[in-house]
Amino acid sequence: MTQPRAYDELCSMLRDTAVLDSAQRVLAYDQETVMPEGGAGLRSQQLEMMSALVHKKRTDARIGELLSACEKDASLDEAARANVREVRRDYDRATRLPTDLVAEMARCSSLGMHAWKEARAKSDFSVFLPWLEKTVELSRRKAECYANGRVPAGGELYDFLLDEYEPGMTAAATRAVFGPFRAALVPLIEKVAKSKAPDELLAHAEYPVERQAAFATMVSKQMGFDYATGRMDVSTHPFCDGIGPGDTRMTNRYRPDGWADSLGTAMHEGGHALYEQGLPKGDRFGQPLAEAVSLGIHESQSRLWENLVGRSRAFWTWAAPKAGEMLGGVLKSAAPDAIHKAVNIVRPNFIRVESDELTYNLHIMLRFDLERAMVAEELSPKDLPGEWNRRVKSDLGLTVPDDRRGCLQDVHWSMGLVGYFPTYTFGNLYSAQFWEAAQRDLPERDAMLGRGEFAPVLDWLRRNIHAHGRRYSAGELCQRVTGKPLTHDALMRHLERKVAAVYG
Amino acid sequence: MTQPRAYDELCSMLRDTAVLDSAQRVLAYDQETVMPEGGAGLRSQQLEMMSALVHKKRTDARIGELLSACEKDASLDEAARANVREVRRDYDRATRLPTDLVAEMARCSSLGMHAWKEARAKSDFSVFLPWLEKTVELSRRKAECYANGRVPAGGELYDFLLDEYEPGMTAAATRAVFGPFRAALVPLIEKVAKSKAPDELLAHAEYPVERQAAFATMVSKQMGFDYATGRMDVSTHPFCDGIGPGDTRMTNRYRPDGWADSLGTAMHEGGHALYEQGLPKGDRFGQPLAEAVSLGIHESQSRLWENLVGRSRAFWTWAAPKAGEMLGGVLKSAAPDAIHKAVNIVRPNFIRVESDELTYNLHIMLRFDLERAMVAEELSPKDLPGEWNRRVKSDLGLTVPDDRRGCLQDVHWSMGLVGYFPTYTFGNLYSAQFWEAAQRDLPERDAMLGRGEFAPVLDWLRRNIHAHGRRYSAGELCQRVTGKPLTHDALMRHLERKVAAVYG
Repeated sequence: MTQPRAYDELCSMLRDTAVLDSAQRVLAYDQETVMPEGGAGLRSQQLEMMSALVHKKRTDARIGELLSACEKDASLDEAARANVREVRRDYDRATRLPTDLVAEMARCSSLGMHAWKEARAKSDFSVFLPWLEKTVELSRRKAECYANGRVPAGGELYDFLLDEYEPGMTAAATRAVFGPFRAALVPLIEKVAKSKAPDELLAHAEYPVERQAAFATMVSKQMGFDYATGRMDVSTHPFCDGIGPGDTRMTNRYRPDGWADSLGTAMHEGGHALYEQGLPKGDRFGQPLAEAVSLGIHESQSRLWENLVGRSRAFWTWAAPKAGEMLGGVLKSAAPDAIHKAVNIVRPNFIRVESDELTYNLHIMLRFDLERAMVAEELSPKDLPGEWNRRVKSDLGLTVPDDRRGCLQDVHWSMGLVGYFPTYTFGNLYSAQFWEAAQRDLPERDAMLGRGEFAPVLDWLRRNIHAHGRRYSAGELCQRVTGKPLTHDALMRHLERKVAAVYG
Repeated sequence: MTQPRAYDELCSMLRDTAVLDSAQRVLAYDQETVMPEGGAGLRSQQLEMMSALVHKKRTDARIGELLSACEKDASLDEAARANVREVRRDYDRATRLPTDLVAEMARCSSLGMHAWKEARAKSDFSVFLPWLEKTVELSRRKAECYANGRVPAGGELYDFLLDEYEPGMTAAATRAVFGPFRAALVPLIEKVAKSKAPDELLAHAEYPVERQAAFATMVSKQMGFDYATGRMDVSTHPFCDGIGPGDTRMTNRYRPDGWADSLGTAMHEGGHALYEQGLPKGDRFGQPLAEAVSLGIHESQSRLWENLVGRSRAFWTWAAPKAGEMLGGVLKSAAPDAIHKAVNIVRPNFIRVESDELTYNLHIMLRFDLERAMVAEELSPKDLPGEWNRRVKSDLGLTVPDDRRGCLQDVHWSMGLVGYFPTYTFGNLYSAQFWEAAQRDLPERDAMLGRGEFAPVLDWLRRNIHAHGRRYSAGELCQRVTGKPLTHDALMRHLERKVAAVYG
């Protein structure tokens, strides 16, 4: 109750910055879900201006003064010290980026995304190429600012981009996790390829968009997503944004034969959204203790709901009759077991977000290798389609028919998100490790899932993960919650069990 | 091509401010159409902060310096001089408002609107009363700042609020127009009350919301509204916002039996939207020459499309078969004449926005008198419901059943918009006067409307009104376009013809 003034002033500045940043998030959300096409030019100017204003607040020299005062203050409690530690990290990173670079990145992201949409629609890489080149160039400039002239031995520029999304992670450490994971995963995928696949027609039955949306919404509510403080809209590429206290939004997309995909997306984005709604934003809005640890941990929450819950046999005990009731048609008489098998087919796919739990990770490893190579100037952006297609052939055995289903499928690079992709596989790995830990605390978990009782799982996540914000690093959190560092063991155990259940 | 530096710097500052202001408009639009309920608290903080940032830019002392330089610069062309004149007006007004008052008004508007929604839903005036009191108090403080200690003889504080929306207008001048108008209008309404009304069932046939929206959208496209640079969404209270170049948005609302209302709303808001899309925002964004003259002129554009076009016999020659085709049901076999009569019934209604072209103006006169009285402290906000109900009884002959259908029906006061209502009747008066002027230039107009050819009307509006922005004042524009000052003559001629056609 008697925190010294410097700390209070710091928290007040953080809150102001968070309010302005949240306004920028609304603009970005509107851009993806509502804005008419003609608004793109103005929106890029708005985002550029907002981004510069937020950056100015984040790099205000007063924060540096307050941080120095706080760091000397022995009376701060442990929570305050964790906040100070994380604000120091953010401040040092932010002050290394010049304002004009920040503004240029925001403009490039807004216009680049617009160009990417056109390029993807026409499957014409040349429309996007200038923006990809610009994005790689700006990413390198950003990494050089972060590196501040010092790339550690064995390190590379890419590490400073990855560190933005997964603090503490490096390209070398990523390879150390991905390597053994790949070695264990590929033989399992090959084993599946030789097995007879179960019937998957159920997963592709056609339903009107409105009914799919109603079913996806019902399931997200059952998971615990609060629609009084949230929404689910439609966008080209589904995403979630925890805009701020009382306003958490996610998007979905619908195809006539994609009810299983739109359900999976609602559970995936819903997992992100539950994390955002579970962070202690009320009093602490703007403080690191009210923010997500890392994108890997964020993704662990989405993958846990999408894959560990939503693709489990237990979930379908509850969900199959609900699907029959709300979607009707062939699902009316479908057995839980049949749906469970139909939504767990393993088959290499051109599209990352439509991929199964196994091959998905090969997509990530491919993107990690290619973006790392572009940043290291070992791969020229103009050669991306060729290299992409070569890798898809060798990793997934598929011939990419066009760039729309190849290197133009993902929004990330168009938004300037380089160093982001690996966090998806980190999320898969974390999710399985957390799921095993939760099993120990909730021995009746399968029976509860079978009755649609998700509250105990959400409560476990709230207590063990959401409540902490950035108090612990991702590595510390993993160790604390699971008793082990991050490895591929839990995920491989899960995938092997899954394959055994679905493919026999 | 060789405008001096001060003017260029001024225009560049105006553009920056406009970009930030347009971002704020997106937040306000999202609040009304998309935001979840729980986001209200954060949104009020965002809007407060954005409002303060915009106000700071608008009151930057550098603008004052540049204005002084521009005012001495004899080399400026006529357009530049008009910009300088209008920026001077804006700057002087803005610099009279302290930043904390601006922020307080923004917060009061955001939270007040939230309270109003709840009050209206519950029909509980007490929920809104504290916010109304606050709004009146803040309006008085604002007017006092604008008055700067000097209220001219015969003037009053309210004039300074009205002047914000209708530059140059005063309460006394308003009474001078409203008085004779009322004297001419009331006998016509009484005459109608004694006549036998035509069958109105066609106007209340029930249709699914989706079909109503499709019909309203089709008509707005036919009017010339460009959906590549605009949208139509759903909100409690329909409105239009010309957010910026390439992004003009309007809203509608739908009831099962309200196809005629949702069409009228689309044409009304569409009229506003066409004005916004017709202002020369490209190069001039942020300059007065790219801004609307006044709310009265803005409303003239919406009323022209809603009433002069959309309620005309000629329009229904084209629209009746379209309505039959897209809406079906009883409209399939309805004659243009029958629909024309059904959408032109004159009958006193509790609800302003559902009122006919005649009695609508009595609603406005009532609101003008009451808000003026509250600002003058002749009426206490707590006495508003009683006084409102008394006036509705004496003016419209109706007994208000509850505050939801009484003084809680309009959003304006909750948003801090005091002095705004009279502009609706100014708009009605201007629209009829413009329509008579357009008739002289487009003698074949009725035949064109009957074929759904609206482009010549839009083109006439673009050339005579939209293209000028704030180059001329509302009064000058009226004189220039119609050859006369604003009077009730043209509107009364129109209403008398209408009553004769519908009531025989």
